[in-house]
Amino acid sequence: MKKINPTLPKGTRDYGPIEMKKREYLFSIFKNTFSLYGFNPLETPSIENMDVLNGKYGEEGDKLIFSILDSGDFIKNVDQIEKKDSNKLKREISKKGLRYDLTVPFARYVSMNRDKITLPFKRYQIQKVWRADRPQRGRFREFYQCDVDYIGTQSILCESEIIELVYAIFDKIQIKNISIKVNNRKILYGISEVLNFEESFDKCCILIDKIDKIGKEKFNNELEKIQFSKKQIDGLNSVLFFEGSNKEKLIFLKDFLSKSNKGLEGLRSIEKLMKLSKKFDFDVSLARGLSYYTSSIFEVVIKDEKIGSLCGGGRYDDLTEIFGYKNISGIGISFGIERIYQIMNEEGLFPKNIINSKTILVSCLSEEFMTNSLKLASKLRENNIKTDLYPDNPKLKKQLQYANNNSIPYVVIIGEDEVKSNLFTLKNMISGKQEKLSLEEIISEISS
Amino acid sequence: MKKINPTLPKGTRDYGPIEMKKREYLFSIFKNTFSLYGFNPLETPSIENMDVLNGKYGEEGDKLIFSILDSGDFIKNVDQIEKKDSNKLKREISKKGLRYDLTVPFARYVSMNRDKITLPFKRYQIQKVWRADRPQRGRFREFYQCDVDYIGTQSILCESEIIELVYAIFDKIQIKNISIKVNNRKILYGISEVLNFEESFDKCCILIDKIDKIGKEKFNNELEKIQFSKKQIDGLNSVLFFEGSNKEKLIFLKDFLSKSNKGLEGLRSIEKLMKLSKKFDFDVSLARGLSYYTSSIFEVVIKDEKIGSLCGGGRYDDLTEIFGYKNISGIGISFGIERIYQIMNEEGLFPKNIINSKTILVSCLSEEFMTNSLKLASKLRENNIKTDLYPDNPKLKKQLQYANNNSIPYVVIIGEDEVKSNLFTLKNMISGKQEKLSLEEIISEISS
Repeated sequence: MKKINPTLPKGTRDYGPIEMKKREYLFSIFKNTFSLYGFNPLETPSIENMDVLNGKYGEEGDKLIFSILDSGDFIKNVDQIEKKDSNKLKREISKKGLRYDLTVPFARYVSMNRDKITLPFKRYQIQKVWRADRPQRGRFREFYQCDVDYIGTQSILCESEIIELVYAIFDKIQIKNISIKVNNRKILYGISEVLNFEESFDKCCILIDKIDKIGKEKFNNELEKIQFSKKQIDGLNSVLFFEGSNKEKLIFLKDFLSKSNKGLEGLRSIEKLMKLSKKFDFDVSLARGLSYYTSSIFEVVIKDEKIGSLCGGGRYDDLTEIFGYKNISGIGISFGIERIYQIMNEEGLFPKNIINSKTILVSCLSEEFMTNSLKLASKLRENNIKTDLYPDNPKLKKQLQYANNNSIPYVVIIGEDEVKSNLFTLKNMISGKQEKLSLEEIISEISS
Repeated sequence: MKKINPTLPKGTRDYGPIEMKKREYLFSIFKNTFSLYGFNPLETPSIENMDVLNGKYGEEGDKLIFSILDSGDFIKNVDQIEKKDSNKLKREISKKGLRYDLTVPFARYVSMNRDKITLPFKRYQIQKVWRADRPQRGRFREFYQCDVDYIGTQSILCESEIIELVYAIFDKIQIKNISIKVNNRKILYGISEVLNFEESFDKCCILIDKIDKIGKEKFNNELEKIQFSKKQIDGLNSVLFFEGSNKEKLIFLKDFLSKSNKGLEGLRSIEKLMKLSKKFDFDVSLARGLSYYTSSIFEVVIKDEKIGSLCGGGRYDDLTEIFGYKNISGIGISFGIERIYQIMNEEGLFPKNIINSKTILVSCLSEEFMTNSLKLASKLRENNIKTDLYPDNPKLKKQLQYANNNSIPYVVIIGEDEVKSNLFTLKNMISGKQEKLSLEEIISEISS
C-alpha cells in the first residue's frame, strides 16, 4: 500500500471536538433567535449550475468560483481543445461550481418555487461557501455564511425588525458596544444629483466604502483623481462628515437634498425608521460595496474598535429578476459568523462549561466488572447524563488522564469494592474530591 | 440583463422550511443521543486533496468522485494535453475533489492530529457527501451521511455500546421492530478455510452480501460459476442457512470451525459480545460489501420488511495505515439518515407539531398601529414565544392566509379597538376560536 502524507487543501480547516462545541453553541443562538423572529431555515445544494453562478459576483468574483469538472469522459465531446486558454476550456468541461454566497442560491430558490411559497417569504440560511481566494491569515477558502432575508415586501418594518434581531443576537453572545449604522443608497444618489456627479456614482460609492480604511485625506485625493472639482469635494465632505444626532442629520439633509426627489425619498425612509426605532446610527458615509443594494443599507461595528464590520446588509429592488421573477423587493443581513466566532474566542465569551459540563466517565478497573460498568452507564444515560465509558481496562491513572484530556468533570470508578457494596467512587476531576455514593446520589450530584 | 432559467444540478435538492424542520428534529435526536454516549462532534472540509481520496473506494468509487478544477490558468503548465484522454488530463488539472464519504476524511484527521488527540478517540460526524452517481429515484448526488466511530481500541465493549446506541436512537425516532444483525469477518474466513476456498474469499463475500437480493438459488448458481464444487456449495449452505438461536449457532459453528484458528477467534468475539448483550441477531450470512472490515460487522434492518439496511458498520484493523499511522483498530457504524428520513416521512413519524407549534403571527390592520405591533411582538419574544410580524397592512384575510400557509397556529390582531382597550384579539387558527385577551393572558395561553 503506497503511503500518503495526510494534508488539507489550502484555506480549509477541520473543526475538532472543542471547536465544534463552540460553533454549535454559537449557531444554536443564531437559529433560536432567527426562529423567535419568525424566520424559517432553508438549505440549498453546495453545487449550483454554472450559469446560475456566473456573472453575479462581478469579474473578480467569477474568477473565485470553484469549478467542478464534468463527470465521465469530459474531453470526448470538446471539439477543439483551445490550448493554453483556461477560460474557454473551463466553459466546455465544467458546467457546475461550488456555492459562492447564499444570496444568489436564495434568489434561485425563490424564483424556482414561486408557485409554492407565500410572500413575504422569510428565511435564514447557515451554510458553507467556497472562494478560490488567496489564503491569508484569518481568510479561508471554505467558510460559513449566515444570512437572513425577507423577500416580497417593501415595508420599513423589516428594517426595524432586523435592527431588533441584531440587538437580540449580540445581547445573547455578549458582544457589547455595537453600533448599527444605517444609510440609504437613495440619499447617496441624491447627493450625487445635487453635486452633479451622477455618472461617477458607483465609483464614488466604492471610495466612500473605503473611507474607514484609507482616511479622509486619501479619500479626497482619490476623488480628485476621478476628476471631482474642489466644489464637489467640499460639498461631499460637508455632508459625509456632518456631525450631529440622527435628527440633526435629518434636518441638514432635508435642506441639502431639497432639489433631489430620489434623495428625499431615501430620507423619508430613514425618517420613518426613526419613528419605529431609536437603536441605529444614521451614517451618511455608509455606502456598502455590493452594487445590488438600492435603498436601505446597514452595517454593524463595535464602537471605538477598528476590527471592521460584523454584519452587513441592505434592501435590493430585484434580485430575482435575472431568473425571470420580477418586482420582488427584498432585504437581508449577513452575519459574519466566522469573525464573530473569532472575537468570542479571543475575548473568552464562550461559556466555560460548554465542553462536557454534565459529562461523566465510567471507568472500569477489570474486565470482570464490565457488565457492571455497562449497567451503570445505561442507568446514567436513562437519566439524561452524558456518559462516556472507558472501553479498556488500563491502570486507573490512564483512565483519569483520558477524562482530563477530554475535559470530563466527573469519573465514576468501578472495582471490586464498588461491585460488592453497590456504592461507587465518584471523583470530581476539578476539585479532586472523591466520595462513595449510590447510583441515586451520583445522579442527583451531577444533575444539580 | 440576460435572463437565466433557474435550475438545480441533477441529483441535488433544496431543503425548504418544512423539510428543514423535520431534518433538524431528526439530526438533533442523533446529536443528543451520540453525546449521551460520549461521542463528540467533528467536521472536516468538503474539499479534500485528490491523493487523500483516490484509491480508497475501489476503481468504481474513484470514478464517482467529483473533481474540482484547479484555480487560475490551470492549462498553462500542462505540457501535453492528451487529447481525448479524460483520465490523464484530469490528474493534471484537478488536484482536489469533493468528499466521497466520512470515513477516509476521519482517518486523515486522526493521522494528522495523532499528537493532539487522546486515544480511544470517539467522534460522530453528520455532513454531506458527493457522488457522481447516475441519479435515480431516491438516489442523490449530494446527500447527508452520519457516522459514529471509535478509534484506538480493540475492546468488545465498543460493539456492545454501538448496539445500545442503535436501540436508543431507533427508540426515540419510533421506528420499531428493528433487528441488529452481527457477524464476524473472521468467521467467514474460517468457513473459507474449512471449505478450502480462501483464494475466492473476497468474491464469495460479495456474493453472500447479495443473497438478500438475488435469493438462495441464484447465489448457488453464481458460486458454481466461480468454480465452487458441489461439496463446497453444500457446506456453505449448511452453515449460512443454519437456523437456530444465537446460542445454537454458536454451538454448531464451534464444531464446524474446530480446525480454523481464525474462525474460532471470530467466534470467541461473538461469544464475548453475547455475554454483554442479548440485543443482536447472530447472522452468519451477513458479509458487508466493504473490504476494509476485518472483524465484527453489523447491519440494522426492519424485521419482515424488504427495504434494505438502515445502518451498517464494522471493525477495521487499520484504516489510518495508508496515512502512515499504524496499528490503530477502529469500529464504526454509519446511519443511513436519508433513508431513515424517508421512512419517517412516509410513515408519519415526525411529530405533528414540529412546524411552528408555538408560533404566533402579529397581524396589523393599519400603518398607524405599527408601533403597537412592534411592541407586542417584542413582549412576546421576551417570553420566548416565536413571533412573526406581518410587515405590510393588506386586508386581514390575506394576513390570515399567510398564517395558514405557514402553519402558524395563532394570530393576534391589532386594530383600533385593540389599541384603545389594550385587549388583543387572539385567533386560534386550528379551532377558529377568537377571544379578546390581555398580553399576559396571551402569553399564558400560548405557553401552556
